Amino acid sequence: MANVVVQNIERADRAATDRLASFGVATVHEAQGRTGLLGAHMRPIYAGAQISGAAVTVSLPPCDNWMIHVAVEQCQEGDILVVAPTSPSDAGYFGELLACSLSARGVRGLVIEGGCRDIAPLTKMGFPVWSSAISAQGTVKETLGSVNVPVVCAGTAIDPGDVIVADDDGVVVVPREHAVEMVEKAKAREAKEADTRKRLLAGELGLDIYGMRERLEARGLKYV
Amino acid sequence: MANVVVQNIERADRAATDRLASFGVATVHEAQGRTGLLGAHMRPIYAGAQISGAAVTVSLPPCDNWMIHVAVEQCQEGDILVVAPTSPSDAGYFGELLACSLSARGVRGLVIEGGCRDIAPLTKMGFPVWSSAISAQGTVKETLGSVNVPVVCAGTAIDPGDVIVADDDGVVVVPREHAVEMVEKAKAREAKEADTRKRLLAGELGLDIYGMRERLEARGLKYV
Amino acid sequence: MANVVVQNIERADRAATDRLASFGVATVHEAQGRTGLLGAHMRPIYAGAQISGAAVTVSLPPCDNWMIHVAVEQCQEGDILVVAPTSPSDAGYFGELLACSLSARGVRGLVIEGGCRDIAPLTKMGFPVWSSAISAQGTVKETLGSVNVPVVCAGTAIDPGDVIVADDDGVVVVPREHAVEMVEKAKAREAKEADTRKRLLAGELGLDIYGMRERLEARGLKYV
Amino acid sequence: MANVVVQNIERADRAATDRLASFGVATVHEAQGRTGLLGAHMRPIYAGAQISGAAVTVSLPPCDNWMIHVAVEQCQEGDILVVAPTSPSDAGYFGELLACSLSARGVRGLVIEGGCRDIAPLTKMGFPVWSSAISAQGTVKETLGSVNVPVVCAGTAIDPGDVIVADDDGVVVVPREHAVEMVEKAKAREAKEADTRKRLLAGELGLDIYGMRERLEARGLKYV
Amino acid sequence: MANVVVQNIERADRAATDRLASFGVATVHEAQGRTGLLGAHMRPIYAGAQISGAAVTVSLPPCDNWMIHVAVEQCQEGDILVVAPTSPSDAGYFGELLACSLSARGVRGLVIEGGCRDIAPLTKMGFPVWSSAISAQGTVKETLGSVNVPVVCAGTAIDPGDVIVADDDGVVVVPREHAVEMVEKAKAREAKEADTRKRLLAGELGLDIYGMRERLEARGLKYV
Amino acid sequence: MANVVVQNIERADRAATDRLASFGVATVHEAQGRTGLLGAHMRPIYAGAQISGAAVTVSLPPCDNWMIHVAVEQCQEGDILVVAPTSPSDAGYFGELLACSLSARGVRGLVIEGGCRDIAPLTKMGFPVWSSAISAQGTVKETLGSVNVPVVCAGTAIDPGDVIVADDDGVVVVPREHAVEMVEKAKAREAKEADTRKRLLAGELGLDIYGMRERLEARGLKYV
Repeated sequence: MANVVVQNIERADRAATDRLASFGVATVHEAQGRTGLLGAHMRPIYAGAQISGAAVTVSLPPCDNWMIHVAVEQCQEGDILVVAPTSPSDAGYFGELLACSLSARGVRGLVIEGGCRDIAPLTKMGFPVWSSAISAQGTVKETLGSVNVPVVCAGTAIDPGDVIVADDDGVVVVPREHAVEMVEKAKAREAKEADTRKRLLAGELGLDIYGMRERLEARGLKYV
Repeated sequence: MANVVVQNIERADRAATDRLASFGVATVHEAQGRTGLLGAHMRPIYAGAQISGAAVTVSLPPCDNWMIHVAVEQCQEGDILVVAPTSPSDAGYFGELLACSLSARGVRGLVIEGGCRDIAPLTKMGFPVWSSAISAQGTVKETLGSVNVPVVCAGTAIDPGDVIVADDDGVVVVPREHAVEMVEKAKAREAKEADTRKRLLAGELGLDIYGMRERLEARGLKYV
Repeated sequence: MANVVVQNIERADRAATDRLASFGVATVHEAQGRTGLLGAHMRPIYAGAQISGAAVTVSLPPCDNWMIHVAVEQCQEGDILVVAPTSPSDAGYFGELLACSLSARGVRGLVIEGGCRDIAPLTKMGFPVWSSAISAQGTVKETLGSVNVPVVCAGTAIDPGDVIVADDDGVVVVPREHAVEMVEKAKAREAKEADTRKRLLAGELGLDIYGMRERLEARGLKYV
Repeated sequence: MANVVVQNIERADRAATDRLASFGVATVHEAQGRTGLLGAHMRPIYAGAQISGAAVTVSLPPCDNWMIHVAVEQCQEGDILVVAPTSPSDAGYFGELLACSLSARGVRGLVIEGGCRDIAPLTKMGFPVWSSAISAQGTVKETLGSVNVPVVCAGTAIDPGDVIVADDDGVVVVPREHAVEMVEKAKAREAKEADTRKRLLAGELGLDIYGMRERLEARGLKYV
Repeated sequence: MANVVVQNIERADRAATDRLASFGVATVHEAQGRTGLLGAHMRPIYAGAQISGAAVTVSLPPCDNWMIHVAVEQCQEGDILVVAPTSPSDAGYFGELLACSLSARGVRGLVIEGGCRDIAPLTKMGFPVWSSAISAQGTVKETLGSVNVPVVCAGTAIDPGDVIVADDDGVVVVPREHAVEMVEKAKAREAKEADTRKRLLAGELGLDIYGMRERLEARGLKYV
Repeated sequence: MANVVVQNIERADRAATDRLASFGVATVHEAQGRTGLLGAHMRPIYAGAQISGAAVTVSLPPCDNWMIHVAVEQCQEGDILVVAPTSPSDAGYFGELLACSLSARGVRGLVIEGGCRDIAPLTKMGFPVWSSAISAQGTVKETLGSVNVPVVCAGTAIDPGDVIVADDDGVVVVPREHAVEMVEKAKAREAKEADTRKRLLAGELGLDIYGMRERLEARGLKYV
């Protein structure tokens, strides 16, 4: 299990994977029963990116980015790289050169529970990263880890091939086998929200739209 | 005291309330003797907003946003919603739909010691939020709280009807009865600062403008 | 040693000092053997600034910004002010008026392990600040400190006259006597990276460019 | 309101104040509807103390402990000193000498959202402190504050004369006018818990004692 | 997958489970290749406990402890309860009464990424808890979760029936199927360490015992 | 400067070094003008230790404890080891075996801005450690650092041979050349405090002993 590179992973349905970006993190998270969200300390290095893709996962030792170099070769167009150190560290595991390499392969972004550097060039080239820190601190290339094994990233279990959705709200993972179903659920939710949005903007109250008044009264809410 | 919605609150003087935005948080905070500032962990979800308004307050249980729906109905044009969970949590209590509802009533923004989600749509629609976290994590609607009762938000006591001023520096509260007086004090401070700014930009030193040299010498500062 | 203002400091070579900005923090940090980086909690108040300059250092008591006023007089064109409280505090030691004063003297920016306020005006006037907090909380002017003595700022020792380089990645210090040498090392690194970047964008793998495959195999990495 | 020492405060009923210690923080917090708890970052400097007393409150500037010296004179037997800086700081506002002075007046302990020092002597003399930090960093005596005014400490509003209860779980405040009523409620809760404890230790399940099974099934819980 | 209670889980080999406590967390963590450690924010509520047991897992919503009551019934002698909220919260999910109930069933302790209360009684009764917070804040019983499903607790994936080892260093998990093997590996490590300990206490240097001098010289270490 | 072991360092006067422990951290910190304190996140692994000794310093890369093994050989009776990673990490750099080795050489304790493990055995053997974290996470032995060079540890500059004083309040450093003088200053402070303590315990007020009443009145304090 340790120090392996799994070369052929099964990725989630491609059409579903690509479609999920459009719903955004909050809607997808709700659609799958409020599960799959990564910790709120995972923040985008610049505002405005909204992506989805298949997870290529990396488990690596703290302060050592060797396995990211190994992982690049396993990536293909439409993937998102997910990097999870086995122990937390703010070190800057990732920067512009690795982003160039990933870009050349069609990778859409990076999710890392660790530090990222070269923020200005990454922003300029439009390679989005969600990280737990920004730090120029270099890492070493001394100890092995694994590629495409199950990892825990920012408190959430991620399997290779799962769908990652990331935007300004954070990052959510959709298990590979649920991707297609989640598109349908997210669509339904979005449709319902579109209608609610219209009514709310027109001045109707959520209290009425959601029919909350009775239950509030039953619970004992008093207006004074 | 518990589980009540106070319907008729007295708001601070409207003209003063509206005028306070222009001074910004730092000046208002100084004008009222360095009091009223909320904790520095309260950050805007996007840069550049600068608002003031009358506080409609919400006290609610952690991870439960039911009372925000109740509070919407109590808001009127020119208000700012202030949400204080009784126990800290990063959960995403607030998002785009609630913002649509508040917008429709003329509410100017939200201050919440908790999480906010839908950052991209909120930024696009220009609904400013100051929060202690960004998180897509949904909340429940199970337990009552209160609207328009005194709350403590981010370490500072806020009464319904107080003036909230918020900008890129953070959030400050002005007690309702001091709003008019604070406009005068802030004006005076601003006038004085305008003059000082001019002199500093022209190259004069604060050491001379503020007459600090003597006191520094008396205290024992040595130039070597 | 306490409560002194050192008036004549030796600054790093001016051409080298000015040149270092162009390499950015990550490259300079790597060029000097991964040393000199300030803590990752030092963040720019707005994105996009990239500067270098000679350090004028300030050691001051917590919640007291008196010595910043004293330090202004010691600054000259091309300097960067470095402020290190003797005990941590989020208070807002620095704002627009001090920035006007520093701007008038040609100072390029501020690095402070403490709070900064007036974010909107500072952004508008283009005076960059790297700080550990944003807070409107005012400070007092009661207790002396020192100017141009060795300080520790954000975990890193800085001597007056050292070169400070700061960008979106954070802040790094180059000891005064190494500035010229570091320009050469950074140039060499940059040249090498330019070539690597080209090859990576063309689809070559780091595994091949850096010749990693053999060492990975020797360490026991298995492809499955 | 600023810079005042209120000399005659009304304290909560003495018998009720003294009695509340015995219930502990968790029970009192529950008894008053889950309100009044100070933030979980308030920790005792040593384990095992459990006290209650009337609050003498101190509002003071960050890194300045002058007003604590002023407050000592306002304390009497059975009080607990509550110190709330107007801006957060870890500095060590309080140590052994102040504890000797408070001990001599019969004060039972200190609650401070700030730093405490002299941990070893304070432990030895048995003077309990709940603080947000332990730090030897000294403070100054330069700026005024107030004694016995309403304060916000660790996120909770406290009025002079309110009852403070503190133990290894943290700190809770009981508003002065509710002290007597809260003794009754806490007693009732304790009696009920004593019975439940006995049944649980005998092996009965909470599921049965609290009658939860039906509601769980109604909500859709599945046993597999 | 959601809202289920799995009643019959396969527990790790009982003899191995019981034996693992004696090695302690650090040795077990090393024995299994430096994996399985929970985050360092998981701290014991009192010093000196050292336990191992089979994991009964609970996934529950933030600020809601209903499922802990459900989980008690699934516990048997020798188990350790592992509680993982789906979103982080400091609330006090667990206290003395639940500990009485678990004690009555022979459960050895609790691991919870959340808050614990009743620290004094838990210490007195000797029921050890490793938690991410201490807080008296009560929780509700409104929303379902699951018992004995795979969870992520403090950044580490845990399956029901896995072995938990916890001591003053923190918490580590051993996958169920590796328990027996890990006893052997830990024994080997312990035996080796016992010999090394003796030699070190006798004054031999690790540099010599581990034969480090040559490699240090080869890497370029200079003695001056 | 990089990757060197300095073998002959000048240690502070031995008698003064040994004497400083008795004053404790707070008194020594005050005696040297409130300087030299390490950050408040440096906490003892068990309560009650109070030591002083000469600093043997270690600068090492994050998550790599190789240089601690090198440093052991440079230690002699009466020393305290000071370990400063070049980038922050919670990893467990130090445990029981290294403590055995240091004990055998008469080293009195460890100060490390990083993680420590084997808390229970270290407590049992009475080897005190002040660290920024407790973690069982192992480290590697791959990259060089330096021994007995100037370091910054927890925000404070420390030179080899300086005196370290550590107790339950934290850690303070006394520059080697000031050790003797600081004993005198600390003695004077202690004598004065002994007298003050007696008077305070007898019920005299600090307001009178320190003659504060006039200055308070002059500043405008009002008694109401």
